[in-house]
Amino acid sequence: MTLAAAALPGLPEIRHGDDLGALLRDAAGRLPEPGLRAGDVLAVAHKAVAKAEGRVIPLSAVMPGAEARKLAAEHGKDPRLVELILSESVELVRADAGRLIARTHHGFVCANAGVDQSNAGGEEHAVLLPVDPDASARSLRAALGCAVVITDSFGRAWRIGQAEVAIGCAGLAPVADWRGRPDTDGRLLHATVIAVADEAASAADLVRAKDSGEPAVRLRGLEQHVLPDDGPGVAVLLRAPEQDLFG
Amino acid sequence: MTLAAAALPGLPEIRHGDDLGALLRDAAGRLPEPGLRAGDVLAVAHKAVAKAEGRVIPLSAVMPGAEARKLAAEHGKDPRLVELILSESVELVRADAGRLIARTHHGFVCANAGVDQSNAGGEEHAVLLPVDPDASARSLRAALGCAVVITDSFGRAWRIGQAEVAIGCAGLAPVADWRGRPDTDGRLLHATVIAVADEAASAADLVRAKDSGEPAVRLRGLEQHVLPDDGPGVAVLLRAPEQDLFG
Repeated sequence: MTLAAAALPGLPEIRHGDDLGALLRDAAGRLPEPGLRAGDVLAVAHKAVAKAEGRVIPLSAVMPGAEARKLAAEHGKDPRLVELILSESVELVRADAGRLIARTHHGFVCANAGVDQSNAGGEEHAVLLPVDPDASARSLRAALGCAVVITDSFGRAWRIGQAEVAIGCAGLAPVADWRGRPDTDGRLLHATVIAVADEAASAADLVRAKDSGEPAVRLRGLEQHVLPDDGPGVAVLLRAPEQDLFG
Repeated sequence: MTLAAAALPGLPEIRHGDDLGALLRDAAGRLPEPGLRAGDVLAVAHKAVAKAEGRVIPLSAVMPGAEARKLAAEHGKDPRLVELILSESVELVRADAGRLIARTHHGFVCANAGVDQSNAGGEEHAVLLPVDPDASARSLRAALGCAVVITDSFGRAWRIGQAEVAIGCAGLAPVADWRGRPDTDGRLLHATVIAVADEAASAADLVRAKDSGEPAVRLRGLEQHVLPDDGPGVAVLLRAPEQDLFG
């Protein structure tokens, strides 16, 4: 089997109200072997989606409450940014050394509840995660006719560095479940559930530089994981807090 | 930028003492666009490396001690398997619901200290992780003339499913550190360290089925992360226990 990943060239800076599907389709038309097929998976960095959906907040519009001001003082952070983080969170999982790890409304556990000032359109703005990234993925899938995964880079327990993971998907099986299938010796595989959508997000991340303005990557060769419908979305990938052994 | 990932075809079942480098080189010669170049990254599932290095243990040879027998009884596991897990561990991080999460001698935090009965050559054997996966990667790099990453699938905190990560590498930069470089707005990126070796492991995992006997995948297009020497290996990816915020 082979996989080919290619960053879509020439996408403009995305702005609120842009028809992101149309921009992505045009950019895919500029690839060698142009276009998007039903068996393709298009990985889109969440920031492009969030910007199109108007999730860029000027910090000047944020009024920090008492809890945000207290946390900001303790961790040396901008209280307006902390207010946004709290507004996106259902729970602060860890707070230490200036870093806030939160569980978001979606159920993601990540730094700053996904609130990010990089590539946000200037120091005084922050980008929030899309309100419903699975819905965003479904909308793009309908527009583009291929599977879509929306991605963000998350830190991990016990390992240095961030890896790109799926925060929304449509038309892509989030996991491949090998449990109960035989291995090469005919022994049943007991604990092999592969996080396909996260691995696809990571594969896509390898072909774009963080400063390159290339938020979208076409993955060709994952047909075995592409579904005939939207599928369950990334909820399948989220472990309930009470079931978490690693966390 | 583009990335092409291709599973090496026709590798035999690997046995103790096999010249793994020669087998991989022969298999790479059977790919379309055959061979391995200096800018390629070859991802090799740890089990092929461990088997070549004789890290397959018949359970009949294992004498479980008192701690292994106690843990095995508590968690419904084979005491001989638990003895192997303990022998590979410096610390048991979690033990619950039949699952043992350990920190290995290498510093990896993973289920069962990487001890695995799948594709082990029968129910009554277990495969241990290579003793020094970075050294294994360096040896393969010397034999093959391309970068090498040795991989295993690890569970993650807070997310369902396993993702393939790097447990050894040579000639590949384990991380890409964007801190201090400007984003598209010219704002300095503060917290962007990308776990390139882990993302490469995940990309490779997408093109091989767990029961396919395809342990090796050639990744072409990662030249920007390939080093002129062995580089630091995966130690760079391991967070010291006292610095871990997610864990």
